Amino acid sequence: MTGREGGAEIGPIGNSPVVILVRPQLADNIGAVARAMANGGLFHLRLVAPRDGWPQEKAWRNASGADRILDELSVHATLADAIGDLNRVFATCPRPRHIVKPVLTARGAAAELRTVCGRGLGAGILFGPERAGLDNDDMATADTLVRYPLNPAFMSLNLAQAVMVMAYEWWTASDETMPRRLMTNETRLATKGELENFLSHLVDQLDACGFLRNQPKRPGMVRNIRHLFQRGEVTEQELRTLHGVVTELAIGRRRRGRLEPETVAD
Amino acid sequence: MTGREGGAEIGPIGNSPVVILVRPQLADNIGAVARAMANGGLFHLRLVAPRDGWPQEKAWRNASGADRILDELSVHATLADAIGDLNRVFATCPRPRHIVKPVLTARGAAAELRTVCGRGLGAGILFGPERAGLDNDDMATADTLVRYPLNPAFMSLNLAQAVMVMAYEWWTASDETMPRRLMTNETRLATKGELENFLSHLVDQLDACGFLRNQPKRPGMVRNIRHLFQRGEVTEQELRTLHGVVTELAIGRRRRGRLEPETVAD
Repeated sequence: MTGREGGAEIGPIGNSPVVILVRPQLADNIGAVARAMANGGLFHLRLVAPRDGWPQEKAWRNASGADRILDELSVHATLADAIGDLNRVFATCPRPRHIVKPVLTARGAAAELRTVCGRGLGAGILFGPERAGLDNDDMATADTLVRYPLNPAFMSLNLAQAVMVMAYEWWTASDETMPRRLMTNETRLATKGELENFLSHLVDQLDACGFLRNQPKRPGMVRNIRHLFQRGEVTEQELRTLHGVVTELAIGRRRRGRLEPETVAD
Repeated sequence: MTGREGGAEIGPIGNSPVVILVRPQLADNIGAVARAMANGGLFHLRLVAPRDGWPQEKAWRNASGADRILDELSVHATLADAIGDLNRVFATCPRPRHIVKPVLTARGAAAELRTVCGRGLGAGILFGPERAGLDNDDMATADTLVRYPLNPAFMSLNLAQAVMVMAYEWWTASDETMPRRLMTNETRLATKGELENFLSHLVDQLDACGFLRNQPKRPGMVRNIRHLFQRGEVTEQELRTLHGVVTELAIGRRRRGRLEPETVAD
């Protein structure tokens, strides 16, 4: 019963699918499964006939604080008993054969599970034993199969990794993070006016130092410099730094010019 | 050097991103990372200053056949050395602070990595050490951060799990599997004509046995039965089985009726 006193707060528990490990073999994996579940916002775990019995200390050691999931799991002698109160049962299955059944990708399954759970129904996802996976009788208890799109040349997927992918898709199915954003933290994106102000400063100094003295090439060179900074991702803070850099370089050059006149001729 | 004689074929190796483990601590995890990479079609691994040196037998034991990735990895003293030949570098980072940088989701990163690699450029993804993650200097070498949408109340993500999510998204980004399909294997979906044929057979037998004798309710009952079978997912093979079931049940009833006339009165 070790480890039961600890564990992290792992978030609010809504109506989320039950993860059902069918005849799991290794307590290490059961712990890693709990951790992966917590990562993806799945909190309900059931074990069907765990090979080495239950509880197993190793599981808590491997759960990295997802103790609550292990503390509250239920153990069942049969799969029928473990799913008796559920309305929909999905079975993960890498290579389904000779079966007539809907097959979903992990992403498709996550979307469907969100719908099912959103209606207040009970849903479960079956994961088979490490060595052999779910057998034909196990799969006949499920209404839907789940098959992850993964490298067909290397299908050996660790149990906790299989749960991780499903938990990740479950979480992502209701997540609205933009696929890409510029993180600016304490500052903000510069305005076009602020950028223009800096670019004028820069070009003035480049004119002053002679960098742009080739008149035919000057417009193209100025444009290239403008393009470098015009990618929509310069912040107000960075512009202030750049103003300082340009000013200091220019002052340094002038100071050097005063102190070491020979270098100016170069 | 054990394990180097073995390992599975893990698929064709195109221009895929390099996974770079920065100061990894546990050889077990390096092996699990290789396995996860093979699952998702990532094949190039680099280690920066692995804590316990390299090679480590344990890694091969934990790779479940993804030996080739471990056999061919390179070890680097510094991160700068590990990324010197790459054009784009992404850094996975659960809680970026005080940084101005584009942040992608795992899915957004996978899409961008597909584009970068499709253009023939070299891309890499940094993963930090187990305990502390990437430090600020590590992150300053990357052009883009990657932050997975996952349960903010439980962010403790195992290293191999972090690689699994990225590898899974990398694979999925070029995968065209339909989110849902009916797997029929040896048979095929029934036609509406075949289904109608079965439903007529069923209704005839239900009329014959008296199940539909309540005339006012009969049309609704027949419709309900039709709805049950009309969900677009009955196969030709299943219809043949159902024809047999109905026929045998009806024959059994008649036979029973002949042999045990007293039950007919019931």
